Amino acid sequence: MACQPYTAAMSQVRHTRFLELERIAICGLGLIGGSILRALRDAGFKGHVTGFDVDGATCDTVLAQGFVNEIAASPDGLFLDHDLVVLCQPVGTLLEWLAHNKMQMAAGHAVCIDVASVKAPVVDALRAWPHHAAARFVPCHPIAGKASHGWEASQGDLFQGKLCVMTPDANTAQGAFDLASDFWRTLGASTTTMAAPEHDAVYAAVSHLPQVLSYAYLHSLASREGTAAWLAYRGTGFQSFARLGSSDAQLWADIAIHNAQPLIEEIDRISDSLALFRQYVRNRKFRELATAFSSARNFHAQSGPMDAGFTPSA
Amino acid sequence: MACQPYTAAMSQVRHTRFLELERIAICGLGLIGGSILRALRDAGFKGHVTGFDVDGATCDTVLAQGFVNEIAASPDGLFLDHDLVVLCQPVGTLLEWLAHNKMQMAAGHAVCIDVASVKAPVVDALRAWPHHAAARFVPCHPIAGKASHGWEASQGDLFQGKLCVMTPDANTAQGAFDLASDFWRTLGASTTTMAAPEHDAVYAAVSHLPQVLSYAYLHSLASREGTAAWLAYRGTGFQSFARLGSSDAQLWADIAIHNAQPLIEEIDRISDSLALFRQYVRNRKFRELATAFSSARNFHAQSGPMDAGFTPSA
Repeated sequence: MACQPYTAAMSQVRHTRFLELERIAICGLGLIGGSILRALRDAGFKGHVTGFDVDGATCDTVLAQGFVNEIAASPDGLFLDHDLVVLCQPVGTLLEWLAHNKMQMAAGHAVCIDVASVKAPVVDALRAWPHHAAARFVPCHPIAGKASHGWEASQGDLFQGKLCVMTPDANTAQGAFDLASDFWRTLGASTTTMAAPEHDAVYAAVSHLPQVLSYAYLHSLASREGTAAWLAYRGTGFQSFARLGSSDAQLWADIAIHNAQPLIEEIDRISDSLALFRQYVRNRKFRELATAFSSARNFHAQSGPMDAGFTPSA
Repeated sequence: MACQPYTAAMSQVRHTRFLELERIAICGLGLIGGSILRALRDAGFKGHVTGFDVDGATCDTVLAQGFVNEIAASPDGLFLDHDLVVLCQPVGTLLEWLAHNKMQMAAGHAVCIDVASVKAPVVDALRAWPHHAAARFVPCHPIAGKASHGWEASQGDLFQGKLCVMTPDANTAQGAFDLASDFWRTLGASTTTMAAPEHDAVYAAVSHLPQVLSYAYLHSLASREGTAAWLAYRGTGFQSFARLGSSDAQLWADIAIHNAQPLIEEIDRISDSLALFRQYVRNRKFRELATAFSSARNFHAQSGPMDAGFTPSA
């Protein structure tokens, strides 16, 4: 089936104010999707909400608790009769879904946003979509993870004071972008934009690598006999460092594999720093080691407190 | 000068109850020494306290605030006229001091404890001491670090609910050990014992490596142009991971170099885990990566909450 030729009218968006929408679908009701669901009810959204999750028990709970008006039988085709579709699946599942739904998106009028932690593969997948359908898709990444996950971990204030990075491109319809911006701001987040590859490079460094390092650290302990007893001796430093290790393993394996190249570059860079430190320690180079530690410390000092709010220099 | 032959009477300790002591000296009035000073006053210690710090301004402050009765002119010779000497210098400084003071220790009756994060070099240094003097030295490591440091960061409740690991050996006098135990317990800590090399292996893994990794992570970012702007995009994961990066660089270079071999072994082990993960990511081995992440997560799950208290299985 050939793509329809793009016309401005086809990517026109009916509403750019989130609270004016009538029907919203949320696909994936875990930490992020569940928190979006709670937050949009908290924000006073009075319209119809359709939910979907692969876990039937979660669907039953969410429906029984009155958070959704209906549970969809399938994650496909939600575009056809919703104004906004919010895709909260893990990135691998999302990419399959994007491949599968491009024609439904073309037939409907919905604006669509995702929340995946990796953005270049999403933007790449949209290149296979009909132009005017891709124009109504706004790739988003709310920076609002926490160590626990699932519907039980969701909270209506998860996005308050957080940042949502949006990665539109030249093809993105202004109306769709405005609606997505209004959506996140109404949920309490601030918004910024980046190019998708830049996003993935930055988040490989500031998010995916710390996660992988935390797992690697715990993996190096877990691989040996007798180390479980060592946990009794840990201080707050261990706790702070290893906190990320309680995150969902499948979710993070999915993210790591879909952001492979930027992540590998970060792994190589920290491996270089670690090898340098090892050499200083082995050769008792106190001054060089202290200087390297200081440069790390000075870099950290630039980060300021988390509660200072978002102030990107970009 | 030959060492005096050891007799049980020479290592006899006058008191084994900390609050019965008359004169205590604290050498080094930073986070740990300062917190000990505050805590012993909070615990109701009414005797004479002598303080020393290389920083004259800190000495002036501590004296003016009435926490000490006197400031020593030098860190040497404190053994001669004190019942308990608490050594809170960085480990490198401590080792120099141990080499310099062995004869004063032999001439006095003081019990001595240190607080260094590395214990095998301390125990090794004591082997050069007269036998009966070394018998009154109890190597200790209170697990009570925090990211900030110096007298300003000290707090009287720093040791409440924390663990103090003591590494006595066969030569340690029972009375000295009992006094040191009573000291830490009166300050609110629980105590346990380990052999010094075991201590150093465990703390290389649960404390020194996380610290070095945190510095390596920040160092790998700090070494590139433009990465400071990335800090605006960080989430709580970065913050949690990088928190250790604000720790004192000189102090940690000192610890790393004095625990070189165990730390190098830990660096090599995590490098292996990281290389394995890199290979999985590069080859898109989702299942293997998720399994490895899960083993890390399961290991972390054994650690339980920090506030559950100390329950070593040793």
